[in-house]
Amino acid sequence: MEKTIAVLPGDGIGPEVTEAAVKVLKSIAMRYGHTFHLRYAAIGGIAVDQYENPLPQETIEVCEASDAILLGAVGGSKWDQHPSHLRPEKGLLSIRKHFDLFANIRPVKAIPSLLDSSPLKEEVAKEVDMVIVRELTGGLYFGEPKRRNEKSAVDTLVYTRKEIERIVNHAFEIARTRRGKLTSVDKANVLETSKLWREVVEERKNAYPDIEVEHMLVDSAAMKLITNPRGFDVMVTENMFGDILSDEASVITGSLGMLPSASLRADGFGLYEPVHGSAPDITGQNIANPSAAILSAAMMLRHSFNLHSEASAMEEAVMGVLEDGYCTVDLFKDGKRVVSTDTFVTKVI
Amino acid sequence: MEKTIAVLPGDGIGPEVTEAAVKVLKSIAMRYGHTFHLRYAAIGGIAVDQYENPLPQETIEVCEASDAILLGAVGGSKWDQHPSHLRPEKGLLSIRKHFDLFANIRPVKAIPSLLDSSPLKEEVAKEVDMVIVRELTGGLYFGEPKRRNEKSAVDTLVYTRKEIERIVNHAFEIARTRRGKLTSVDKANVLETSKLWREVVEERKNAYPDIEVEHMLVDSAAMKLITNPRGFDVMVTENMFGDILSDEASVITGSLGMLPSASLRADGFGLYEPVHGSAPDITGQNIANPSAAILSAAMMLRHSFNLHSEASAMEEAVMGVLEDGYCTVDLFKDGKRVVSTDTFVTKVI
Ligand SMILES: CC(C)[C@H](C(=O)O)[C@@H](O)C(=O)O
Ligand SMILES: CC(C)[C@H](C(=O)O)[C@@H](O)C(=O)O
Repeated sequence: MEKTIAVLPGDGIGPEVTEAAVKVLKSIAMRYGHTFHLRYAAIGGIAVDQYENPLPQETIEVCEASDAILLGAVGGSKWDQHPSHLRPEKGLLSIRKHFDLFANIRPVKAIPSLLDSSPLKEEVAKEVDMVIVRELTGGLYFGEPKRRNEKSAVDTLVYTRKEIERIVNHAFEIARTRRGKLTSVDKANVLETSKLWREVVEERKNAYPDIEVEHMLVDSAAMKLITNPRGFDVMVTENMFGDILSDEASVITGSLGMLPSASLRADGFGLYEPVHGSAPDITGQNIANPSAAILSAAMMLRHSFNLHSEASAMEEAVMGVLEDGYCTVDLFKDGKRVVSTDTFVTKVI
Repeated sequence: MEKTIAVLPGDGIGPEVTEAAVKVLKSIAMRYGHTFHLRYAAIGGIAVDQYENPLPQETIEVCEASDAILLGAVGGSKWDQHPSHLRPEKGLLSIRKHFDLFANIRPVKAIPSLLDSSPLKEEVAKEVDMVIVRELTGGLYFGEPKRRNEKSAVDTLVYTRKEIERIVNHAFEIARTRRGKLTSVDKANVLETSKLWREVVEERKNAYPDIEVEHMLVDSAAMKLITNPRGFDVMVTENMFGDILSDEASVITGSLGMLPSASLRADGFGLYEPVHGSAPDITGQNIANPSAAILSAAMMLRHSFNLHSEASAMEEAVMGVLEDGYCTVDLFKDGKRVVSTDTFVTKVI
């Protein structure tokens, strides 16, 4: 198989962890006889510095000519005082919108050997295995009007039935490949958009009689993620709720440094990135945990290229290194052997 | 002192826990020589049943003629299929708006003897002591336009500078009576309303040089509440974020059944209610935990009536009963003695 991958390392530890993932991809290519063409381009703060644009036209063109996008991380305090259109995050928002990456997929799975690092009691966090499906191109992030003056400000939360249908369908399909339970999160007792959301879920349910559907209010979901995270299989929700709940979920198993994500378009094209951020404080020290980036690359093989055994091989390699007792410093506990980013990657390969 | 209290028991366990609080208030009145006139009125589902209105005019009048409102809980599946204007929650939203109860105050404090019930590890949850200040009458809940048709739906997130100023000032004042740290939560990297919010906090900060101010993005706050809840002293945020984060915070110490809340107007008038809901499943069994209702009544004495020793006496009485090893069934652990709601209240008195 021959594929072109746009590689956008971004800021902070982005380049280090992306390079780690690239090394593993190259070794996969070699072993399985694939060719991955890598096209590097700038996004985020580094793109602001070089092009005065967090998502330069050059980068868009590279991505348009590719089969998938592998991203590191964006952001850093250096750009904090910039106006909105020159901030790293704007690059992320624009690329999502430009490529219509409406479905953000975030698996959260407890890793037994890491439960020590969880803030939750082991009996609460163990065996958690869920996927959050977040709508990524609608809602409060993009709705108009959106404006501000001296005296007041407004943002607009809009959803069309079509936007809701496609994300909800996507979530139903994922639920079908898993334990068959879908939790739809909204605030239907207050918001009109949530009422429409709930209506659509109720309708689509008929096409998925095999899936158990549950509606949950967002405030209640924020509690249940902590008190009973095992109660979730697939959770689907709108953009802003998904932002909050997926970050909340990312810390419950103690493995934030391990979590990958995918942001998908309807045709399978997608952007893959670790959930953790750019972590400027540990940049350039060869200590960052590359697991999330590697696992994001594995998601890319699976979702955009349909290379399932290759994806599993990558996932098993990462888990194997952890099980052998090696880890990067973020996961250090008595009895573990701390290694550098490079050494970790070599072992994975 | 002579005060009139509007008592709105509401639905589910609301009447039981409110009656518990009333009993304790009566005993306080007797011991300290105060007179509390109690005026009962309907709100929520029971008001829908009796008046076809979750906040009847009669109830508004009773509250207007009172010095404070003590509320139980509203809601239940019985009214789930009703149209919005006939749902119990609508009563709550309307009373907040009608009385301009803009400041929702929710203290979350770890109780050593209850840490067992926390989903968090003891070393994470112990010594948590924070207050969440949520804006309660603006934002997405009330902004116009708010509408829905077959094809799409919209809600509007609006804030005026004035609305932000008054809640932020309130939070600064609370921080001053505590450890002097204020965390303002927003999504200033995406929302215009959040940019205005952050601007106001930065301005008001000058008037409070003694307070340490920190800005935090809502997604990050959702993580930090779990990974490092002790890092918070006072948190201030807008309505919807506050809804989600305060419910998340309510479960971290394992004492949801203990948490009181206040919703205040600028002049000190306020509505006091337990954080827990109406719990229809345990209604009428004399097993509900009345602590949150009693502690809400204590907040009423403190905030609306300036009766500080009386409030402390109530708080200490509840903690004393717990320390003596008694609890309601929700808090049962080996070695504790489970008692009924009535017995618990008698012991508090
Ligand atoms: C950087 C920011 C705009 C972004 C978001 O809120 O969507 C991030 O928090 C995320 O969740 O991917
Ligand atoms: C009942 C509901 C409208 C309400 C809210 O979201 O404000 C409740 O969740 C709360 O937090 O008091």
